[in-house]
Amino acid sequence: MEAPKGYRFAAVAANFRGKNNGRLDLGAVLSDTPAVAAGVFTTNLFKAAPVIHAQRQLAECAQARAVVINSGQANACTGAEGEAQCRESMEIVAEAFGLKPSDILPASTGVIAQTMNMDRWREAAPGLVSAMDSCGPDDFAKSIMTTDSFPKAVYRTVDTPSGTVRVFGAAKGAGMICPSMATMLGTVLTDAAVDADWWRDTLRSVADRTFNAVTVDGDTSTNDCVFALANGASGVSAMPGTPEAETLAAAVEAVCDELAYLLVKDAEGGTKVLDIRVSGAKNREDAELAARTVGHSPLVKTAFYGKDANFGRIVAALGRSGADFDPAEVQVSVCGVEIVRNGAPAPGDLDAALAGPLEERDMDIRISLGGGDGEYRLRAADLTHEYVTINADYRT
Amino acid sequence: MEAPKGYRFAAVAANFRGKNNGRLDLGAVLSDTPAVAAGVFTTNLFKAAPVIHAQRQLAECAQARAVVINSGQANACTGAEGEAQCRESMEIVAEAFGLKPSDILPASTGVIAQTMNMDRWREAAPGLVSAMDSCGPDDFAKSIMTTDSFPKAVYRTVDTPSGTVRVFGAAKGAGMICPSMATMLGTVLTDAAVDADWWRDTLRSVADRTFNAVTVDGDTSTNDCVFALANGASGVSAMPGTPEAETLAAAVEAVCDELAYLLVKDAEGGTKVLDIRVSGAKNREDAELAARTVGHSPLVKTAFYGKDANFGRIVAALGRSGADFDPAEVQVSVCGVEIVRNGAPAPGDLDAALAGPLEERDMDIRISLGGGDGEYRLRAADLTHEYVTINADYRT
Repeated sequence: MEAPKGYRFAAVAANFRGKNNGRLDLGAVLSDTPAVAAGVFTTNLFKAAPVIHAQRQLAECAQARAVVINSGQANACTGAEGEAQCRESMEIVAEAFGLKPSDILPASTGVIAQTMNMDRWREAAPGLVSAMDSCGPDDFAKSIMTTDSFPKAVYRTVDTPSGTVRVFGAAKGAGMICPSMATMLGTVLTDAAVDADWWRDTLRSVADRTFNAVTVDGDTSTNDCVFALANGASGVSAMPGTPEAETLAAAVEAVCDELAYLLVKDAEGGTKVLDIRVSGAKNREDAELAARTVGHSPLVKTAFYGKDANFGRIVAALGRSGADFDPAEVQVSVCGVEIVRNGAPAPGDLDAALAGPLEERDMDIRISLGGGDGEYRLRAADLTHEYVTINADYRT
Repeated sequence: MEAPKGYRFAAVAANFRGKNNGRLDLGAVLSDTPAVAAGVFTTNLFKAAPVIHAQRQLAECAQARAVVINSGQANACTGAEGEAQCRESMEIVAEAFGLKPSDILPASTGVIAQTMNMDRWREAAPGLVSAMDSCGPDDFAKSIMTTDSFPKAVYRTVDTPSGTVRVFGAAKGAGMICPSMATMLGTVLTDAAVDADWWRDTLRSVADRTFNAVTVDGDTSTNDCVFALANGASGVSAMPGTPEAETLAAAVEAVCDELAYLLVKDAEGGTKVLDIRVSGAKNREDAELAARTVGHSPLVKTAFYGKDANFGRIVAALGRSGADFDPAEVQVSVCGVEIVRNGAPAPGDLDAALAGPLEERDMDIRISLGGGDGEYRLRAADLTHEYVTINADYRT
């Protein structure tokens, strides 16, 4: 549980939503020295102001000193005024921290289509600086939560030939989670020194296999982003092609994979983590189509919530997915129990065989579509009464 | 409320699911004379045995005497045994009716992946014949229900230059309703005489604008089909290019449109009918993508259920839909209240303006994506606690 060296953390209650309830809603990470920085962002056409801002900034210079995240107001669908507010908020924080505005990567989450209360920024910024004395990475992980029921912080310490390197990751998620940057904010930190291009490519490919391969409800947010900072404070250099880089990349993937699991575990109202692994598809695209259609199907999701081995819903979802396969070659198992053999019900008393496994949280769903080598893995949440409650009443 | 001439109807409790509870689960329509027949079917790769059967039959000969529907066992994902059982069930009914098996179009709905209880078919078939004496179209509409809360039967009588023609339609729906033949069974009858090719083309284009433009949960069933029969018993000929054909086609569309509305009104657990009209898209495909993404979004659906004017969810759904547009050109109104102007929140107190309209069942959602001429209309249900309850416990 050791944090990467050379970073400080802060979390305060800025009361962005006007409720003076002490909820932490402003968090910051500050690197003692300039860090190599990379980001991956939502593909939604309606991008929140901080997404536009951070994307532009990283395109100009792959370096940052800080990440500042507010979890009260999303500042999305707020037009030119929202972009101006985002710039102003970074100026306010930069002044308090003694940085340039362009040293800071902003992110935000919360209610869409409200302009921000700039007074809150001005009031909160000095406290954010003093909070650094008493806060740690876990406080930062808490400050980015919205409807999350627990903070998501993951630590890894790995040994490389040149010495020890630490990786820390924090994420928030819960709802509106889906492909292309699940409404989801993530921050990954390491104290290794890296090459900027390699760091960006590594973050992208790791995000594709982890954060982008989870779904709660198929809704992709306007605000999603993951930042990765590497400040070199460990003294270990992880340049491309070295064993150090390989070890670091594996640690970053382990951290992101664990965070992705935690995001689905803490899905709004979720009671199950559906780990859907499709193989034997004609290609990766077909495998992904099949996995996503199963993982998004409200009927499949409610069946798992109801602990009902109604596997017909899985094959029905496969059949309409658009993936190209021969139904007679389809095999499906759930929690190690074969339920579909060659496109038809597997023999045996499936209800009896599945009664025990369906009580668990983790559902292992294996689907083979035929003899191809296309594969895809998706983690999905179930669909529950609580999901509806949370989302029907979010703003009230 | 006059049924087309020359048809008889039957509905009995065959107890397909072993529950001797008197629920009508076997229905039939019999035309006194051979009728011109057309069908549209699910695009799911896993097609139920009766779908495969009826599709093959209509490809050979566009004519039928009867439609027989069981609402207990779907006979889907049942492989070769299911197809053999489907053939056998048609033989049993044909013998009771004094018809050839190929005179009958089968359809079924219910639990997937169970083989049928053939004894129930043998026991029920004679009763189906005698039930014709006492049953009418409304009984038939009742017999095809599963989780539907009310039967869906629509009547139209129209005058043509050559005389009066009647159109009747019955449908069942409720869950697993989505594009490409929303798990949905429909039967449309008329007593006009028609041309087989024209009848098929008319059914297809009408189904595209009506049944295929509704969604409850995005799940497309293995069993969906709509049959249309025209037996000529009115003595009115509606040949292609005549005013009679034009009037008939309009009546068929009115019947199917009303049924489509009723399907969404009776969506599993639904409390709202979201009438989503997208215009100004670059083309029809983009308009459809945008409408379907909004109509399938769990966040949009729960917001309407919660009577929450959380319109940010609509723009977020548009943004991730894959449709190509400029966010700054997007306009959205809900129930006549402008909520998005040029991609940003419209001025005014939207919560106050929408408080009244959001209490209603029918939600009129207008979306303009820009200056293109692509349009699409989709009717969608909301997502409610009751939907989850129904689908978590369906088989129990």
